[in-house]
Amino acid sequence: MTVINETLTFSTRGRCDLINITEHVADVLTRSGIRQGTVTVFVVGSTAGITTFEYEPGLIKDMTDLYEKIAPSKSSYSHDATWGDANGFSHIRAAFTGPSLTIPFEDGSMYLGTWQQIVLADFDNRPRNRSIVVNIIGS
Amino acid sequence: MTVINETLTFSTRGRCDLINITEHVADVLTRSGIRQGTVTVFVVGSTAGITTFEYEPGLIKDMTDLYEKIAPSKSSYSHDATWGDANGFSHIRAAFTGPSLTIPFEDGSMYLGTWQQIVLADFDNRPRNRSIVVNIIGS
Amino acid sequence: MTVINETLTFSTRGRCDLINITEHVADVLTRSGIRQGTVTVFVVGSTAGITTFEYEPGLIKDMTDLYEKIAPSKSSYSHDATWGDANGFSHIRAAFTGPSLTIPFEDGSMYLGTWQQIVLADFDNRPRNRSIVVNIIGS
Repeated sequence: MTVINETLTFSTRGRCDLINITEHVADVLTRSGIRQGTVTVFVVGSTAGITTFEYEPGLIKDMTDLYEKIAPSKSSYSHDATWGDANGFSHIRAAFTGPSLTIPFEDGSMYLGTWQQIVLADFDNRPRNRSIVVNIIGS
Repeated sequence: MTVINETLTFSTRGRCDLINITEHVADVLTRSGIRQGTVTVFVVGSTAGITTFEYEPGLIKDMTDLYEKIAPSKSSYSHDATWGDANGFSHIRAAFTGPSLTIPFEDGSMYLGTWQQIVLADFDNRPRNRSIVVNIIGS
Repeated sequence: MTVINETLTFSTRGRCDLINITEHVADVLTRSGIRQGTVTVFVVGSTAGITTFEYEPGLIKDMTDLYEKIAPSKSSYSHDATWGDANGFSHIRAAFTGPSLTIPFEDGSMYLGTWQQIVLADFDNRPRNRSIVVNIIGS
């Protein structure tokens, strides 16, 4: 059994930028040489989340609509009054989505469905450089 | 320390079929002989999710209502225009629920509350055979 | 590689009591002496959840409003008819939030953002003593 952490960085546009990071995570797994275990994907920060969905334009639009329904970008939030940074909706969407995901793997391959991609959701109201930690535990 | 993956298959009816899989997961844990660690339950596919709630008829009804509120089955989704398969609501509910759950265990027993069951939620619009991966890491 | 479980207990006020438990989790990690791996935080029970957000009064208010929007405390739920305990809204919020979170760590320090705190959300309709399991796997 062994454990590794590797940090990946993504430049995002913010404002509900939904980025398919599946291949990047799979690359870390392949390079690790670990064959069986779990991959945990974790986004550092409080205005982004990690989820899975079928990464195609229609569903990207539908998910964007869902986030807008849960925490509308035009509404007024108490967080904005605290800091004056107008990204209360980003924080709420991030808490709702969650920062992490754990995926089992066997023979060096994650148990993802064909239409199940790992997606970084950047909800902030401006472009960001995002750190994603890929943790692998296994043998 | 050791790691195992075991795949369980469930035949579901789809259309928000909520299935209590706690005993099946506990069986894998017991057979593994591992005493202390984590169980990760992961559903393969983009139209199902894993959650925990008290598995009784009233709450099953309430959770069904929640999913209908989050992503109504009668609404129109962009995903449906992409593929013509009319299950956009299923994908959104799955992304909202998340595909995985990690539960610590000690003395071969998961730290679940008495009224806290592991539930497979199949949101697809037709019956499916679902693969659930039970990953156990521990000693 | 090694694994430990430690249970922490928190007295809560219930009714959407949002408690910052980050330092308590970090203390368990420091005392474990494990330098690299994952921390899984899991709440036992079906009326509480674990999430992360920036723990400041404005966002605490905003998150409270989100939970009220998702499952209003004044609405009628089928669960209440089953048990007569009037906390259907608590169960739904807990299932929505999820009971666990997995965070990678390196050099004995969790990869949390500066404004990303681990929050125990107690949604029950009365004060509770809550058990939180902190599981650490690593080397």
